[in-house]
Amino acid sequence: MHQLRNFAMSKVTIVDVHTHVYPPRYVSILKSRTTVPYVRDTTPGQPSRLIILPGEDSPSSHSTAAGRPIGPEYYDINAKIAFMDTHGIDVSVISLANPWLDFLDPREAAAVAREINYDLDSMCKTYPGRLFAFGALPLSGTTDVIVNEIERLPGYNYMRGVIMGTGGLGNGLDDLSLDPVYRALEANNMTIFLHPHYGLPKEVFGPRAAEYGHVLPLALGFPLETTVAVSRMILSGVFDRFPKLQVLLAHSGGTLPFLAGRLESCIAHDAHYRPEGRRSIWDVLKVNIMLDAVVYSELGVRAAAAASGGDRVLFGTDHPFFPPLEAEEDAKGESADGKQSEKWLSVTTNYKAIRDAFSDNNGQEESVLGGNAIRLLRLA
Amino acid sequence: MHQLRNFAMSKVTIVDVHTHVYPPRYVSILKSRTTVPYVRDTTPGQPSRLIILPGEDSPSSHSTAAGRPIGPEYYDINAKIAFMDTHGIDVSVISLANPWLDFLDPREAAAVAREINYDLDSMCKTYPGRLFAFGALPLSGTTDVIVNEIERLPGYNYMRGVIMGTGGLGNGLDDLSLDPVYRALEANNMTIFLHPHYGLPKEVFGPRAAEYGHVLPLALGFPLETTVAVSRMILSGVFDRFPKLQVLLAHSGGTLPFLAGRLESCIAHDAHYRPEGRRSIWDVLKVNIMLDAVVYSELGVRAAAAASGGDRVLFGTDHPFFPPLEAEEDAKGESADGKQSEKWLSVTTNYKAIRDAFSDNNGQEESVLGGNAIRLLRLA
Repeated sequence: MHQLRNFAMSKVTIVDVHTHVYPPRYVSILKSRTTVPYVRDTTPGQPSRLIILPGEDSPSSHSTAAGRPIGPEYYDINAKIAFMDTHGIDVSVISLANPWLDFLDPREAAAVAREINYDLDSMCKTYPGRLFAFGALPLSGTTDVIVNEIERLPGYNYMRGVIMGTGGLGNGLDDLSLDPVYRALEANNMTIFLHPHYGLPKEVFGPRAAEYGHVLPLALGFPLETTVAVSRMILSGVFDRFPKLQVLLAHSGGTLPFLAGRLESCIAHDAHYRPEGRRSIWDVLKVNIMLDAVVYSELGVRAAAAASGGDRVLFGTDHPFFPPLEAEEDAKGESADGKQSEKWLSVTTNYKAIRDAFSDNNGQEESVLGGNAIRLLRLA
Repeated sequence: MHQLRNFAMSKVTIVDVHTHVYPPRYVSILKSRTTVPYVRDTTPGQPSRLIILPGEDSPSSHSTAAGRPIGPEYYDINAKIAFMDTHGIDVSVISLANPWLDFLDPREAAAVAREINYDLDSMCKTYPGRLFAFGALPLSGTTDVIVNEIERLPGYNYMRGVIMGTGGLGNGLDDLSLDPVYRALEANNMTIFLHPHYGLPKEVFGPRAAEYGHVLPLALGFPLETTVAVSRMILSGVFDRFPKLQVLLAHSGGTLPFLAGRLESCIAHDAHYRPEGRRSIWDVLKVNIMLDAVVYSELGVRAAAAASGGDRVLFGTDHPFFPPLEAEEDAKGESADGKQSEKWLSVTTNYKAIRDAFSDNNGQEESVLGGNAIRLLRLA
């Protein structure tokens, strides 16, 4: 707690690049649906519940049957600002939470994307200078529709990129059909915030997975999904064709920093994959990739900085996910009413990891906390 | 090259804990089979080909249709010694390569395990002091059969543990039915060398995966398989029930070091998984886990050492896999005959990663290169 106060009181500008919202219009869409993803209004007096992950609506799964309660922190931008104030965060780059617009009927995708991006930009306007945004793309639409939306983004005041899942147009991010999309993003200086949602097939986690709650799909499935997705982009030459494309990877790259060496080695030893003039993954990491610092350990932050450079690692929180558990609040003798002003363990863990990782490195801590985001995402 | 000579000429004892053999008896078993895993004798004058991975025998896959050539380095222990001499390795802890005995008819598993373990120990006898072994278990047999084999292992001179895949008895390593196996291994001071084989379902890598050769399944699928397997052991309480059990994780833990923080955070925030008196993953990493240093990057070795301690990271090569490509040899103007005395890129990359990771840390480099293995596996 002491450390956080220091952050808040110092002159360092703290920027959160990984923080999600579901604008009210998006919540309405989810409420109108009855299959995943959707929002279920349950018992009167109880919060609605958000059901976004496959299997969360399965009554046979004791840990995920109920989805998660959705309160103002999901859709009310004032709750976001309160969270920022509690944690000493000066600026947030908000993004639509998963599963974004991936599930939309192609015929409505273009209109919804336009409306949601308008909503996001409008939210930013209500707190000038404190909020910027990654927009959403109508990826279920045609390439023309997607490119049109990208070209509209610079017209907004606060748009700095787009959040994207790993599905692309349905065949992943190594799909050549995405080239017009990548070209438009590169030409319009729009960073891709690449974020997981679909995880791994559930058989990977074995017959006992449900006993461990959401741990295996969230702790391992999500990062592995991101790692596979960005590796497919690299192997298919996306960064060779679009050498200025910028991609911010969620959760410190999934595990790309740790496995980059093995990827390079496997490429160097593969008799069947011998691309000409290939850029090394280490080069791509330092030129095209940014990594958030949402990795919950000092060694993770150090590995991220070693992979992409301390000038390309950016503080984030993953708010509103990973709130404190009620049990923890009770243990501290605080009431649920105190939640708003309570510091979140998920945030203090990441603050501490950054502080510890850069304790011997003058200035780099401040860059990761905010300077890098300000420079790379043009927030000043 | 210069660095390697220094190693070889210095007094440091270098121990390779990750190095595989297929004893001739095992090759005969594979040659008698016609489905994966098997060995195919093809064109006269050409080496036999090893087909162990699902899909390698599919004629539709251009990159994996042919399996890999299998020469003396796979089955001749003299070739192992020659490789060790070339790379300055004093001692190797050999282990049967995947897929071990997992595929055997349960009725023959016990007898084959006994024979293979006899073969491994006999190989070690031919070069006293230079070879030790991880044995193989008849995991398709009953628990009694498996425990019987474990109890025979201390009777050998050179057995220091067992190599195991992630399948266990068919339901993974968090299967409570494995408790007698873990109990016997703990009681007999036999380290588990946990190694991947099955990878991830191929749809994870998308429709273009075959274009990238073996890169995605080998570079990402293998490590992710290991990470999921050991995470399931941790979450199911294996290390709570068997607090002295020792597990050496292949490929620096897959990606356990990088994701340990996220695992801890997801556990701390999961309302449905609240085990009592749970040991933290960081504690398990430092008490029960050893990590090989087969990660091909300085940052990977640093992360491994940060996770388990520099006293629990152990040099390895993954020989005979990842030999130099013929193309590389041609480029250097060397003939295939020169292969035996040529240094392997996969090995020099790991040597360099260790050297760079510990350049500022007196003595730790020597521990990782050999001292840790000698102490933890009782090789002296």
